Amino acid sequence: MASHFIPCDSDYRARVHDSFDRQAVMKTVNASVVSVEPGAVVLEFPFQADLTQQHGFIHAGIVSTVLDSAMGYAAFSLMPVNAAVLTIEFKVNLLSPAKGERFTAIGKVKKAGRNITVAEAELFAHSDGQRKLVATMVGTVMSVYDREGIHN
Amino acid sequence: MASHFIPCDSDYRARVHDSFDRQAVMKTVNASVVSVEPGAVVLEFPFQADLTQQHGFIHAGIVSTVLDSAMGYAAFSLMPVNAAVLTIEFKVNLLSPAKGERFTAIGKVKKAGRNITVAEAELFAHSDGQRKLVATMVGTVMSVYDREGIHN
Amino acid sequence: MASHFIPCDSDYRARVHDSFDRQAVMKTVNASVVSVEPGAVVLEFPFQADLTQQHGFIHAGIVSTVLDSAMGYAAFSLMPVNAAVLTIEFKVNLLSPAKGERFTAIGKVKKAGRNITVAEAELFAHSDGQRKLVATMVGTVMSVYDREGIHN
Amino acid sequence: MASHFIPCDSDYRARVHDSFDRQAVMKTVNASVVSVEPGAVVLEFPFQADLTQQHGFIHAGIVSTVLDSAMGYAAFSLMPVNAAVLTIEFKVNLLSPAKGERFTAIGKVKKAGRNITVAEAELFAHSDGQRKLVATMVGTVMSVYDREGIHN
Repeated sequence: MASHFIPCDSDYRARVHDSFDRQAVMKTVNASVVSVEPGAVVLEFPFQADLTQQHGFIHAGIVSTVLDSAMGYAAFSLMPVNAAVLTIEFKVNLLSPAKGERFTAIGKVKKAGRNITVAEAELFAHSDGQRKLVATMVGTVMSVYDREGIHN
Repeated sequence: MASHFIPCDSDYRARVHDSFDRQAVMKTVNASVVSVEPGAVVLEFPFQADLTQQHGFIHAGIVSTVLDSAMGYAAFSLMPVNAAVLTIEFKVNLLSPAKGERFTAIGKVKKAGRNITVAEAELFAHSDGQRKLVATMVGTVMSVYDREGIHN
Repeated sequence: MASHFIPCDSDYRARVHDSFDRQAVMKTVNASVVSVEPGAVVLEFPFQADLTQQHGFIHAGIVSTVLDSAMGYAAFSLMPVNAAVLTIEFKVNLLSPAKGERFTAIGKVKKAGRNITVAEAELFAHSDGQRKLVATMVGTVMSVYDREGIHN
Repeated sequence: MASHFIPCDSDYRARVHDSFDRQAVMKTVNASVVSVEPGAVVLEFPFQADLTQQHGFIHAGIVSTVLDSAMGYAAFSLMPVNAAVLTIEFKVNLLSPAKGERFTAIGKVKKAGRNITVAEAELFAHSDGQRKLVATMVGTVMSVYDREGIHN
């Protein structure tokens, strides 16, 4: 995935991986990092029956969990080394039932600012070699500096 | 919680409980139903370390998971007996870090229609006997009739 | 409308009125200020044929215009005297067609912070002495200090 | 703008223009149609001092007005001849102040369904031959059949 963003910290990949590894919920949903580029992060996770809603699809909140991490880490990849990342709001549209063998979340920065970054993410379901758009997210992410209990 | 909605199915409580019990993800997050009134559902879940993000708070996506179920079941409580419930979109604002001993999600219908219902939900963190607003959701829920793979 | 917010600037009413009077678009839609309380602002405007969409209702964007000003000024009423107000995002749900003789927008702060405030607004249509909820907004408002071209 | 959508009504261009011409508010903001393709509509409007907020930029609600029409008509272009279009919700992110000589709104369908369509729109400001992204919208549009007071 090409990117027109220049990261202000050349070690952005390690920074994203380190923070991702500290998100315990990513282990719970078995998500892993596929790629980290400046302003763009791809995550994936497999179907898991213990994450489903009443019709057997992945619950919209779990869809949001992985979308938010993809979106947040896309933003985080462009932040300075002393910033922590905090999502302040997001909006999710659910386009198709989240059914499939595995799912890919692609997060991309729309506009990066010193304090406020707007980013997007899309979730695709993979099934029988086909890819289908399941959900979209758009949200606002804040760079947090020196706040108690919240660090890089 | 008082309600001005008249359910069209007097068995709405059992219907909500049955569907909730089929949401496997609710067991994964250890959520339970506190109350079901016409157009209003309260859920709760305890803090769990395996649902956290990098700062040790409950991940925004897990917050969304329980908010979406509270919101969706508030809508579902007012639906006819042959309708299934499907969230088509929601928006979440994260007001405070989701830290605490346990969390309560209060879902309420704003406007119920035959096909489209708009509903809201709020998540509160409980800690040392204090209650704090953590996040709000507003979303659109669809009543689905006779769609393959999606049933009450 | 009672409020539990304490304004940090006792002159908040004059500040809101001054800024409102500088919003030229408020004259275009004939909006006026009904009341300003700490964290709560009420605006109103009459039906105008030149603000309608193809079915003769007030256009959703005009609904958003007045909701955004009500929401933004509710937030602004709690800001310090050197802050300017800037909406960074909002979400609108359209519950009923915007038809009626006049419309009231009620903006209220949900959570006020030094930099980020989350607020809500509701638009009611008045017709034949009846009041009907037309639309809801939830959004994020930023307090801006010392930015070029943007001042209180 | 290339499009992968097949319109179900070959007369979609005339249908969009006819409906657009009945939106009185489009005249008030001096908006005009630049292009109509299947699932994609471009509108434009000039800067007008009577549409500004307190800092002299175009008000976020006016930005939303043109974005909503671009988004809604992108959806409408794919609807059958007997459907009317109604926006049920949208979300706007404001990325830069809406200042410039003129503005272009590009609406595109993300997923079209019989009843529910999800679409997006972006607003660009044009100034000194430069183009800048000002705002994004994502929303849900409903196809309405046979509802009193709402017709194609």
